[in-house]
Amino acid sequence: MTTATEAHSTAQQLIEMEDRALRRWCNGDPSGFLEISADDVVYFDPFQEQRIDGLPALTAYYESLRGMVRAERFEIINPCVQLIGDAAVLTFNFVSYGGNENALRWNCTEVFRHSKGEWKIIQTHWSFTKPNRS
Amino acid sequence: MTTATEAHSTAQQLIEMEDRALRRWCNGDPSGFLEISADDVVYFDPFQEQRIDGLPALTAYYESLRGMVRAERFEIINPCVQLIGDAAVLTFNFVSYGGNENALRWNCTEVFRHSKGEWKIIQTHWSFTKPNRS
Repeated sequence: MTTATEAHSTAQQLIEMEDRALRRWCNGDPSGFLEISADDVVYFDPFQEQRIDGLPALTAYYESLRGMVRAERFEIINPCVQLIGDAAVLTFNFVSYGGNENALRWNCTEVFRHSKGEWKIIQTHWSFTKPNRS
Repeated sequence: MTTATEAHSTAQQLIEMEDRALRRWCNGDPSGFLEISADDVVYFDPFQEQRIDGLPALTAYYESLRGMVRAERFEIINPCVQLIGDAAVLTFNFVSYGGNENALRWNCTEVFRHSKGEWKIIQTHWSFTKPNRS
């Protein structure tokens, strides 16, 4: 069993992990996410034709973006963590601001797995909030 | 521990649950998803300003769509199930076809939790595959 205090502590830990990875991401460095993603990670974003499967494929994709992403600041809005044993689901709305203060709004789901003493991401899903249909 | 055979069986069960709910969904009936969603379900789709939290809010939203969704056929593409104890993550690409054979392409993540002998959805994230940015 997990106590409410332990669950709260885990939730805070995961939100802070996500925040640290996002700070690096918004400074052009994808390694923060790669370091906390598991070998069997699966990944969706709005730019791919289909799901990306596995850390080698995600690494190749993220390395192609190294140095290309910049955001001056961002907000993690209303993060929610659902804990199920060694799995945790983090969901949040996200907004990033570029140099002209134009806001980009996103929906995000991260699923973490606890294994060998550490939490790693096994599923990432980024999508635009209210995009135009393709 | 879960054997490979048990994991395969669970994966098949969850994919079939999703398929049955989608068949009803594509015939205008949202109850298939509501019946397999947990009280604490969280939900993203491309039409909402922010995450929907909880079954009452999701029910209100889905009831507003009752009878409005029609698709002649659909495909669940390359479903993947990641099992972590009493949690399971189902991801797939999805394509639905209307009467004019125009395809709508989606990314989908469902997270299920096993509790009291049944699997229920605790997180749903639907997004468009390669939409135009908002």
